[in-house]
Amino acid sequence: MLHFIYLIAISAEAGSGALMAMRRKMDLFGVALVGTVTALGGGSIRDVLLGHYPLGWVRHPEYLLFTIGAALAAALAARLLQRMKSAFLLLDALGLVAFSIIGCDIAAATGVHVAVVVLMGMITGIAGGLLRDVVCNQVPLVLRRDLYATVSLVTGALYMGLLHYGVDRDVATLAALAAGFNLRLAALRMSLALPVPGQGKPAARGEGR
Amino acid sequence: MLHFIYLIAISAEAGSGALMAMRRKMDLFGVALVGTVTALGGGSIRDVLLGHYPLGWVRHPEYLLFTIGAALAAALAARLLQRMKSAFLLLDALGLVAFSIIGCDIAAATGVHVAVVVLMGMITGIAGGLLRDVVCNQVPLVLRRDLYATVSLVTGALYMGLLHYGVDRDVATLAALAAGFNLRLAALRMSLALPVPGQGKPAARGEGR
Amino acid sequence: MLHFIYLIAISAEAGSGALMAMRRKMDLFGVALVGTVTALGGGSIRDVLLGHYPLGWVRHPEYLLFTIGAALAAALAARLLQRMKSAFLLLDALGLVAFSIIGCDIAAATGVHVAVVVLMGMITGIAGGLLRDVVCNQVPLVLRRDLYATVSLVTGALYMGLLHYGVDRDVATLAALAAGFNLRLAALRMSLALPVPGQGKPAARGEGR
Repeated sequence: MLHFIYLIAISAEAGSGALMAMRRKMDLFGVALVGTVTALGGGSIRDVLLGHYPLGWVRHPEYLLFTIGAALAAALAARLLQRMKSAFLLLDALGLVAFSIIGCDIAAATGVHVAVVVLMGMITGIAGGLLRDVVCNQVPLVLRRDLYATVSLVTGALYMGLLHYGVDRDVATLAALAAGFNLRLAALRMSLALPVPGQGKPAARGEGR
Repeated sequence: MLHFIYLIAISAEAGSGALMAMRRKMDLFGVALVGTVTALGGGSIRDVLLGHYPLGWVRHPEYLLFTIGAALAAALAARLLQRMKSAFLLLDALGLVAFSIIGCDIAAATGVHVAVVVLMGMITGIAGGLLRDVVCNQVPLVLRRDLYATVSLVTGALYMGLLHYGVDRDVATLAALAAGFNLRLAALRMSLALPVPGQGKPAARGEGR
Repeated sequence: MLHFIYLIAISAEAGSGALMAMRRKMDLFGVALVGTVTALGGGSIRDVLLGHYPLGWVRHPEYLLFTIGAALAAALAARLLQRMKSAFLLLDALGLVAFSIIGCDIAAATGVHVAVVVLMGMITGIAGGLLRDVVCNQVPLVLRRDLYATVSLVTGALYMGLLHYGVDRDVATLAALAAGFNLRLAALRMSLALPVPGQGKPAARGEGR
């Protein structure tokens, strides 16, 4: 099931990268590349930091077909997607949470400290969007946004905590998925945000990713 | 011969990085560093993604002398180079094609899927310029440009296809070099470009790299 | 002693990252992340380029507590730090020099050429600040600044030179620390800078890091 969600997640991320690339007036190649970097960049950075080779898309190049296809489809259907923004945010939230859990699994298998495991889950979840914003020359949204990274950390910590206390892996996966997904939706709905230091009040919620 | 072309290619790339660094009013150190990152960044990213150690310039630090020398020379001769723009574009096209073939060779030796091989050739060819633009704080030209990355993909695919059908390596190298180089020149001359999604017509050709 | 200085150095770097993140109106998470990336990014890039695994903070996740704590403390005490700017610059200079020596030690242990050792020392010293500036979407200060990278190169070269001529490691460390630190202070005090190509005179000294 997590594998299926993973494919949905990389497609959603590829679509978000493609839409950003279009706003920068990139050509079709740029759209496909930024989509792919957004979808696969987080896992790649995690694996490079862990020295965990080969990278996922090097072993499974068919993932590239998914991300390129999703990026081009998003570019063609851009107007439709703008109207379906809330569906898009749901997919993106599912992707964030799934990426975090998958990232924890992969990092845990390398035997690193549990704090690093949760951090690697977060890197898997957010670094793709961070790369997308760096390549598109803007201050990463993820660093200014409504609990995006926090959701990833909470999901990973919950997942690893459940595993630590002997909960079955499938149950832990489902529980962490559900908790993280609902936390993200609550953050979107209620415009929850971490305080911005030096400001009187929390940052206003940015526009949807 | 490919080694000789490689040295020309890293010099041309270092020069293109140096000129960009000058436009950003960087000091001599910045010029040398951006030139070196432009020249060696593509190969470094390829090797880090493949887990292929040691990196080229770690094993052959003398490459750094080439890139630093070329960057400083380009900075000193900036006015001259502006007039020699077409010679510069020729060298850059040669570099792109040579980088792509060399990148394919190195990736193929690690035993990855042929699609990943061609992709690694492209990364070798374009990632240096992409890093240059990220460090110089602009949206990467390579994502908005006239067939730059496409030339790299075509060159790599042709090269790997010829090898696959048993063509001699030297012949395949020459054929891919010639085809890629001419495609790049044709793209420059005829302002060929991939369509920009969401626009009525293809992007106007940007100014020479 | 170098370990103690290292902890001071990563705290100072984390603080400098946090202050930059605040200027970009990032939330508390962004402040902690940019601080951590600034503090640990240089060493991480060095280790990834060398294929030297596991990374420092993967093996010692307690470093993350230092950098996150320092980043949040700097965010809370931002007004105070603005008044203590010269203390901050001293810490930053100490950090730059300590990072350079530690980077040389780690690179030398992998058996690479001495030129690569000194370069890796410089990457350890400056790449964190470079990542900070890329993430915060500005042209890296380190590429436009008063002898920052040059101090790192001189420190590393002096350190490796002393070791080469049989000087005791502790003595070499102290000598390189003292020389690099004083060179950096002299550069700050006298507004020393490398020439900027294409300009009539050296760049004016930017504001303190």
